[in-house]
Amino acid sequence: MSPLLSVPGFAISLDRAMKAIRTRAVGRAFCSTANLGAGFDVFGLALNRYSDTVNVRVTSGKKIRIIVRGPEGRNIPVEVGKNSAGPPAAELARKARLKKGLEIIVEKRVPHGLGLGSSGATAAACTMVVNALLDLGLSNDELVQIASLGEKAVAGTPHADNVAASLLGGFVIVYDWPLRTISLKPPHGLAVVVTTPQLPVQFQKTRKARKIIPEKIPVKNAVLNLGRASAMAAAFAKGDIRLIGTGMEDQIAEPYRKDLITGYDDVRRMGLEAGAAGISISGAGPSLVALVDGDNHEPRLVAQAMVRAFAQNSVRSTSFVARPAQGASMVKMV
Amino acid sequence: MSPLLSVPGFAISLDRAMKAIRTRAVGRAFCSTANLGAGFDVFGLALNRYSDTVNVRVTSGKKIRIIVRGPEGRNIPVEVGKNSAGPPAAELARKARLKKGLEIIVEKRVPHGLGLGSSGATAAACTMVVNALLDLGLSNDELVQIASLGEKAVAGTPHADNVAASLLGGFVIVYDWPLRTISLKPPHGLAVVVTTPQLPVQFQKTRKARKIIPEKIPVKNAVLNLGRASAMAAAFAKGDIRLIGTGMEDQIAEPYRKDLITGYDDVRRMGLEAGAAGISISGAGPSLVALVDGDNHEPRLVAQAMVRAFAQNSVRSTSFVARPAQGASMVKMV
Repeated sequence: MSPLLSVPGFAISLDRAMKAIRTRAVGRAFCSTANLGAGFDVFGLALNRYSDTVNVRVTSGKKIRIIVRGPEGRNIPVEVGKNSAGPPAAELARKARLKKGLEIIVEKRVPHGLGLGSSGATAAACTMVVNALLDLGLSNDELVQIASLGEKAVAGTPHADNVAASLLGGFVIVYDWPLRTISLKPPHGLAVVVTTPQLPVQFQKTRKARKIIPEKIPVKNAVLNLGRASAMAAAFAKGDIRLIGTGMEDQIAEPYRKDLITGYDDVRRMGLEAGAAGISISGAGPSLVALVDGDNHEPRLVAQAMVRAFAQNSVRSTSFVARPAQGASMVKMV
Repeated sequence: MSPLLSVPGFAISLDRAMKAIRTRAVGRAFCSTANLGAGFDVFGLALNRYSDTVNVRVTSGKKIRIIVRGPEGRNIPVEVGKNSAGPPAAELARKARLKKGLEIIVEKRVPHGLGLGSSGATAAACTMVVNALLDLGLSNDELVQIASLGEKAVAGTPHADNVAASLLGGFVIVYDWPLRTISLKPPHGLAVVVTTPQLPVQFQKTRKARKIIPEKIPVKNAVLNLGRASAMAAAFAKGDIRLIGTGMEDQIAEPYRKDLITGYDDVRRMGLEAGAAGISISGAGPSLVALVDGDNHEPRLVAQAMVRAFAQNSVRSTSFVARPAQGASMVKMV
């Protein structure tokens, strides 16, 4: 034991002093795809294509101020109650009994309105950064629950699938209340093809996409999702991409949401024919996500097939191939 | 390559001759617990406590005849359309274009009406035996689907969770249609406590227990089950008994079925306090099933706590400790 640690009082003072000088922290979190078909509101997978960076500074005021910049920053609200960084930051400040203000600069690089968890990436990055800055030492499950408050601000319900993936990385199952998470390392070789039809981005898209789902569903449909989602979870744990794909069909949201996506059935069929293990709507859409065993199939062929299928339905689309991403990470803290 | 195999015609004749003399086969299958809470209609776990033995003989007639014997054989119907061995045997005979009859002797040792998959054990044993006898060579998934026809005869719906567990052994996820299965080896050390309240066994209990579940459920309840069942599947794959237990809560059937079980909430609470990882109704009840990490907790203490809790509610009960069982197996074929 070092002499320093043998003088607890001094060590604590030093610790507090060190905390006091932490005034600025920067972190980033990747985008994600949620649901993956059967795992409606409970599965998330972080994708290494886009990330949001959040730069938080403790200020002398008492308010939280949000500034949004970056290539995808236009049309993103800056009000604390409407930006997904706001409610998590406010909750963390409350928990820390912070007497000061926070300035949050969001460098927005995740495009919004496409079904890639844009609001979730911001909420995840902000939650991670403010937790570190205020030295709250919260557990992963607590962080995910707090980050989900940001989704509530944007989508009307505190769904935690995207924020969990952006915070923890890889494949995540979110369940129960208070919220719990299980992280599984995605199989080596898993490639993720995201194909986005160029449909007009709707105002409050996620909120609307949630509203078209009926409040009640037949038990037999719930059972279909239950079995498929469980199969997918087991398959992720086993690292079997083909088996994961067998569960990527949803009876809760997709039957309603697919009507918003012209050509959905064709794109799904042609993507599967081109080698995808499974295809579903990414989050609330309109992007479609295909999981591909990259060791045995060429993801770009899947991407091309999906774009072609959209074209046959007179819809222009773009596609990219991503890999699972790591969780949110600190860039710096001063 | 042997000289015999180099003469295909002869080899086939011999093979046919060998098939022709197969006239009798005996096999057995263990009982099981279904649902395990969140996995309503999709999870099954075979238990090594009781098994049914089925002895099938090809007869000169054209009919299927069922005879039921054994310590649990009373009050079991012998009509082909009402005994769970009947419909699977009829379907397999049809597939094999059998021109003869079958005599099926069921040695019934799994008690019925307790929620231990009694009809499923008979259906599984019969399906396995007849498949072998008629040399149909069906896949596991096909066998499970055919065995589930036996459940339809008894319960009104072809639920496949019990038959899948009895056929394949261990922990099984059943999903999709046509049906698929995933088998996972249960964690070493998993002990299963089954506690049965001595309530009067109801006529057509499973059929009634299914009817009290509403046809539709709120999406938010489906999502709770989805997340928990997925967590359980991942936890079985990881071999983490404590984590399995976190998912053992059901929003589909238990809220309705538990009212049929006096003392349910107390028994569940006291069993958990005594060290169970999770507790739920076993299948359609009235037994309750507790999963226990036998390496770190004493299953008998859980059993005692559950029996005590029932007693405090003026309900007599019995309890046993089982382990996961292997799948259905042939005893002999002549």
